[in-house]
Amino acid sequence: MVPDPIRPEPRCEGPAVVLVEPQLGENIGAAARAMANGGMSDLRLVNPRDGWPNPRAVAAASGANWILDGARVFESTEAAVADLRWLYATTARPRDMVKEVRTPRQAAQRIKAFAPDGDECGVLFGPERTGLRNEHLVLSTDLIVIPVDPAFSSLNLAQAVLVVCYEWFQAGLAPSEMEPDRYDRGARPASRAEMLNLFDHLEAQLDAVGFLRPPEKRPLMVQNLRNLLQRAQPTEQEVRTLHGVVRSLSGTRREDLEANRSGGGDD
Amino acid sequence: MVPDPIRPEPRCEGPAVVLVEPQLGENIGAAARAMANGGMSDLRLVNPRDGWPNPRAVAAASGANWILDGARVFESTEAAVADLRWLYATTARPRDMVKEVRTPRQAAQRIKAFAPDGDECGVLFGPERTGLRNEHLVLSTDLIVIPVDPAFSSLNLAQAVLVVCYEWFQAGLAPSEMEPDRYDRGARPASRAEMLNLFDHLEAQLDAVGFLRPPEKRPLMVQNLRNLLQRAQPTEQEVRTLHGVVRSLSGTRREDLEANRSGGGDD
Repeated sequence: MVPDPIRPEPRCEGPAVVLVEPQLGENIGAAARAMANGGMSDLRLVNPRDGWPNPRAVAAASGANWILDGARVFESTEAAVADLRWLYATTARPRDMVKEVRTPRQAAQRIKAFAPDGDECGVLFGPERTGLRNEHLVLSTDLIVIPVDPAFSSLNLAQAVLVVCYEWFQAGLAPSEMEPDRYDRGARPASRAEMLNLFDHLEAQLDAVGFLRPPEKRPLMVQNLRNLLQRAQPTEQEVRTLHGVVRSLSGTRREDLEANRSGGGDD
Repeated sequence: MVPDPIRPEPRCEGPAVVLVEPQLGENIGAAARAMANGGMSDLRLVNPRDGWPNPRAVAAASGANWILDGARVFESTEAAVADLRWLYATTARPRDMVKEVRTPRQAAQRIKAFAPDGDECGVLFGPERTGLRNEHLVLSTDLIVIPVDPAFSSLNLAQAVLVVCYEWFQAGLAPSEMEPDRYDRGARPASRAEMLNLFDHLEAQLDAVGFLRPPEKRPLMVQNLRNLLQRAQPTEQEVRTLHGVVRSLSGTRREDLEANRSGGGDD
């Protein structure tokens, strides 16, 4: 397969994702996929139930194979997290632990503040059926509870990993990247002069047909029309199109008027 | 089944989730599950490939049956969105549309500002294989692009719905301030290995003096001690200090014991 030349290299950074005793290969693969979307790559598995490697994980990774290939397997959670300085443990409820509880967003922002590339930080996820046990939560510095409706509150392992990875990626975006440019490349918003020109054209035509009457109401009618059109923030090309629309409509009308004036119609 | 008395009623609000020509019942069910987590309930389906109802959707909904039961099926996207005043269309790329592009977070906040319960607002999702076509994007007022690593960028339908529902729920939560980082630069928090080493040291000494008794209470006592020390988030230097504290205390005790054993002391 020929690589896409404009496709950037996948990022290889971010906090470690540590899956404790994952049961389903599908969820390991979906976790790798979520990590790739989040620009993360350090996957660690503690005693995966069905051994490792696992073909079901590959099928679910949707191409994030380099993360599965680089995954490390550990026999204890302690060994899997030994090098980490910040360890966030995900749990549905904080239970009876006296620990700081963060949202995934707060956790991502805090990790980013401590280590912009997530180095020596990690997030712990428990087995599908039970979640993390107290012995795992005790290993962590902080807890993560994902905010969802308490009346339902049911995320599976892959969904929890996705939310954490999504927040990690967002925490790395500059505020300007969070505000994507609304214009396609090359589509320039119209200048003020182009807009005023359009308004003049439109209002002249409307004056000609007596739409902007009575005179004392004209200023407000003009103001409202101008605001309406500016709210759409047209591009240069769209302004040209709008000139054409006004021209066509008024041209049709003029022909009608001329036809009437020539005495052709009895209506 | 006896209802759990402290379980709150599921919320029935939020913007509509409109799935255009969904192919897999599993994804419809997973979307319903995501909506329930986000406190949403208005599901609309445009020409689901395998008809409706769909037992695979029920299996994947993980109990969010009331959302599937209330789902409405439409024969055209236009009919499905006719009553909506704000319609956000999800797409992987903005294409050649001159439209506002929002992140899911921005979209959720804007919907919240317009309608706190999401009334008359909706989000459009395309079929699994192709995503939304231009004819669907044109129906919308704004676009949503989910920020993920452009080097990978592969979210499936259920994952995209989850991110949108998660952001909707978060948009309804009061904003919480991020605390400033408590570590000075240069003061490194201890690694997990350093903490485990400290715990082993402390607990061995406490076992030696019979502090961690009776045996059936030992696990909880250990858990509480570990959580107490981790809540303090010690630095590497502080961990060394704590080792010294444990060593000094147990050394003093040993000297006392030895002094007692030699018969030197009367008290």
